[in-house]
Amino acid sequence: MRILGIDPGYAIVGFGILDAVQGQARLLRCGAINTPAGVPMPLRLVQIQEDMETLIRDFSPDVMAIEELFFNTNVTTGIGVAQARGVILAAAARLGVGIYEYTPSQVKQAVVGYGKAEKRQVMDMTKRLLHLPAVPKPDDAADAVAIALCHARSNTSRLAGFR
Amino acid sequence: MRILGIDPGYAIVGFGILDAVQGQARLLRCGAINTPAGVPMPLRLVQIQEDMETLIRDFSPDVMAIEELFFNTNVTTGIGVAQARGVILAAAARLGVGIYEYTPSQVKQAVVGYGKAEKRQVMDMTKRLLHLPAVPKPDDAADAVAIALCHARSNTSRLAGFR
Repeated sequence: MRILGIDPGYAIVGFGILDAVQGQARLLRCGAINTPAGVPMPLRLVQIQEDMETLIRDFSPDVMAIEELFFNTNVTTGIGVAQARGVILAAAARLGVGIYEYTPSQVKQAVVGYGKAEKRQVMDMTKRLLHLPAVPKPDDAADAVAIALCHARSNTSRLAGFR
Repeated sequence: MRILGIDPGYAIVGFGILDAVQGQARLLRCGAINTPAGVPMPLRLVQIQEDMETLIRDFSPDVMAIEELFFNTNVTTGIGVAQARGVILAAAARLGVGIYEYTPSQVKQAVVGYGKAEKRQVMDMTKRLLHLPAVPKPDDAADAVAIALCHARSNTSRLAGFR
């Protein structure tokens, strides 16, 4: 099963692509889609959607695993992130990729075994479980790989569509 | 100038299309895109984006006028609305339609002449200014027509792109 993990954002979208076979996962590719700050939001959204479509066409993932959104701290940033998440979800659905959502604590639980683990622990376990020489860069890519790994190791996922 | 007004949402997207010439505006069409509640969010977003693209191709608006988003009351609903707004903005930008954002008080100011007007007053003035036999239905369509009318009567718009 090929899993595309996504850490959604409008300035940086982290992605990580895993092949998971019988509990063993292998990292194929990770990285980030970056959109320039000076560009109007609608054009940044177009770029995110088109780059996401290219990524899906190039790697043909079976599923997308994406972080569920909560608005705790910065609501204004949150609107931008949700708008970006919208075009990402639409790109995946349009190309027939099944979408699964995970909360941050589900990711921590699945990767570290403890829902309140520190970010550092998640990164270290991600590196160990995938036999990587280092934690992926940037942070958004590492987060996306952890979300994909969460899907590979988890039965607690749920199909996106509850909000 | 042909203006496509949008009241964004994920269950109902209101739209209104005006032709505005030298301060006179004429309503061409208004209505709503409805997505069924039982359908997963990613597929609702695909439907919204595709219907929006069809609307833009059919009517060739010069600009889109869309309500700016604030999260006051229901943050969970707000995430869904922002995701829908993302695919709407991307559809317009992809098809080369310029996008302008207005706050609710800018719409009230432009249509009624008073930024704290009641919703009822906005609806009545929209009907009068466009010489309509009745206020458009559903409410989302009426709101979208008011936003388009705001653009026709306003010089206080700003290009979307600040979040």
